[in-house]
Amino acid sequence: MCRRIATYSEEPGAITRTFLSPPMRHVHADLTAWMERIGMKVRVDAAGNLRGVYSAAPNPLLTLAPSNPRTLYVGSHLDTVPDAGAFDGILGVVLGIALVDSLNGHRLPFAIEVIGFSDEEGVRFGVPFIGSRAFAGTADGALLGRRDANGRSVADAIRDYGLDPAGLDAAKAGPAIGYVEFHIEQGPALDGLNAPLGAVCAIVGQSRATLDFTGTPGHAGTTPMGARRDALAAAAEWILGVERRASATEGLVATVGALHVEPGAANVIAGTCRALLDVRHADDGVRASAVAGLESLARDVANRRGVEVAVDWTLDQPAVPMDRALTSALEHAARQAGVDVRVLTSGAGHDAMVLAPVMPAAMLFLRCPGGLSHHPDEAVLEEDVALALAAGRNLLDELAR
Amino acid sequence: MCRRIATYSEEPGAITRTFLSPPMRHVHADLTAWMERIGMKVRVDAAGNLRGVYSAAPNPLLTLAPSNPRTLYVGSHLDTVPDAGAFDGILGVVLGIALVDSLNGHRLPFAIEVIGFSDEEGVRFGVPFIGSRAFAGTADGALLGRRDANGRSVADAIRDYGLDPAGLDAAKAGPAIGYVEFHIEQGPALDGLNAPLGAVCAIVGQSRATLDFTGTPGHAGTTPMGARRDALAAAAEWILGVERRASATEGLVATVGALHVEPGAANVIAGTCRALLDVRHADDGVRASAVAGLESLARDVANRRGVEVAVDWTLDQPAVPMDRALTSALEHAARQAGVDVRVLTSGAGHDAMVLAPVMPAAMLFLRCPGGLSHHPDEAVLEEDVALALAAGRNLLDELAR
Repeated sequence: MCRRIATYSEEPGAITRTFLSPPMRHVHADLTAWMERIGMKVRVDAAGNLRGVYSAAPNPLLTLAPSNPRTLYVGSHLDTVPDAGAFDGILGVVLGIALVDSLNGHRLPFAIEVIGFSDEEGVRFGVPFIGSRAFAGTADGALLGRRDANGRSVADAIRDYGLDPAGLDAAKAGPAIGYVEFHIEQGPALDGLNAPLGAVCAIVGQSRATLDFTGTPGHAGTTPMGARRDALAAAAEWILGVERRASATEGLVATVGALHVEPGAANVIAGTCRALLDVRHADDGVRASAVAGLESLARDVANRRGVEVAVDWTLDQPAVPMDRALTSALEHAARQAGVDVRVLTSGAGHDAMVLAPVMPAAMLFLRCPGGLSHHPDEAVLEEDVALALAAGRNLLDELAR
Repeated sequence: MCRRIATYSEEPGAITRTFLSPPMRHVHADLTAWMERIGMKVRVDAAGNLRGVYSAAPNPLLTLAPSNPRTLYVGSHLDTVPDAGAFDGILGVVLGIALVDSLNGHRLPFAIEVIGFSDEEGVRFGVPFIGSRAFAGTADGALLGRRDANGRSVADAIRDYGLDPAGLDAAKAGPAIGYVEFHIEQGPALDGLNAPLGAVCAIVGQSRATLDFTGTPGHAGTTPMGARRDALAAAAEWILGVERRASATEGLVATVGALHVEPGAANVIAGTCRALLDVRHADDGVRASAVAGLESLARDVANRRGVEVAVDWTLDQPAVPMDRALTSALEHAARQAGVDVRVLTSGAGHDAMVLAPVMPAAMLFLRCPGGLSHHPDEAVLEEDVALALAAGRNLLDELAR
């Protein structure tokens, strides 16, 4: 099913599916048909989230022992990054439906709602989690007013798809047992441990900064080495320091993934150099200390070289712990399926992070061969998917008990 | 005059004048009017070079002691880089005419030809020295066939301007005493020494390379530091090594002025990084050794990091010594003008480099405040220009004797 959905794309030859783009209709249609076939009631909410409800067992004793009015939500996102793989996000939605399908019509004392979020990657509007924010009730006017590259706002995009942004209130979650998200790890940890599944204890906190190094552009042939104020050389020294510090701190990752040099000609010394920094750690204190250290390193390098540096912190997002009880239940369910389940942090953001403040949230990671993700070669092993499904079934049984 | 010519530009608010672009007509018109007023015979040759001849004194003894049939060429280039200063190139042409003007009609036993080369910067066709190569007789079919961004060839551009590329042979230099070029230093050496003028002993040799570092792109949040093959971190380590090696070698300059990172997103580890390297030294042996060292440094850094590197050397241009006798005469002339003239190498290429193989060539550098060039704030001091003019007059007198 994931491979089939991967054919619904905005770009021929690649997998690209952004918020409420035309191929999303095919995704909705295929998943809706499957969910309706197995007895689920399906709708698309005003944020473009696809939602299928598998209702609870009728109360056997009528009003005396009511079946649980709360719902177990299972899901992930339907959108992708540009030129994506076939499993990021969509696997969690498909696994949710497969879990319901595996019940063969058996009803539980609580309802299950499978939810496919409309946007997690933030590609179209430059801001992620549109779907889960609407579900968590934190989608505000600022979010609805954001515009895409064509000048269409989120609200416009919702209307363009035939939905009504005025109905966003009805997109909010009801009383919840919790939210369970199956997702590929998108990193090499499980693969390196030869472990199929991992329970996520927390989603790491993240800081982002833009650093602008400003030196003096100059002629590459006529400016002696000692007379240079080379913005790129300054940035290079700092980048090595970022790498060194992150490598020396357990669990810390720090990345300079983008660097823009001006004027950017072979025969001109770099006058300015803009670097984007991304820092993550599960412990907000460790992250805060790293952030301060990396900024002061940039200032030291710049001072010593007679270069200016401006540091603009654009994101400071705390770590989000997953729900301890629900995560324990998920670990237990995986162990019952015969898996030596690992506990790890998630270095990437996920919808579960947005939902954690409003309901118990837990995530189960599936091994990602080579750690490859956001790439056409992204993969999962069929046996790992089977184990995740078995773990999910065990969790449902445990919750039913 | 330089400031006035600076107003003839392809870009409003900036000084940009490429090979035979429309503003070049105004430059030709102004300089032609001046040269004709002081008794020079002016033409534009088939390569678009503006050429004014100030003929020799008539032979006083008829055929017995003929005046020197050879010509002293004085000039520089009329074109500019984008968003240039007002003195690079054009100052040498204006100084040549001012030198003739200062003769007040007095004729010398040899002719002086002032030449304003049509192209030295190579902006329009990506290859420099179109004007001086035609004058040196080294403009070939490959050069004429090169195309600009609009698909016009050099030959087309010559025809578009109303000239005939078939006449290129007549652009070649005649019998020459030599070529003297006045030029701003475009570097900080003279300014640092508080010296107004410098005689150029050699134009440094130059190597250029493109280095492609290829690592593995990965998620900035989920890939542990120890599992990364970060192309940008590898390039950064090498860039620092380039700087260290050049700083430790007398007279060597090595520059990484351009760096392009892919995918280039804040949250993605760099998969590839392309760096452009420029290496210069007056001694070809020192340069060759540096080039080998910098390539092997790149390979060492890449190997240690599990990153690939491809090194493509795109230029290997030997150093060009200036003519010893003509340079000595120029130094002597400057000293006679009261200047403690310095001898230095030129880190930049100049038309004199193209002419040195076909005639004695010499260059006199004028101090460049702050070393600033290829920049709107590029400047010269009026007193330095007066000293250069005085030196030029002394040289003419010496050559006449």
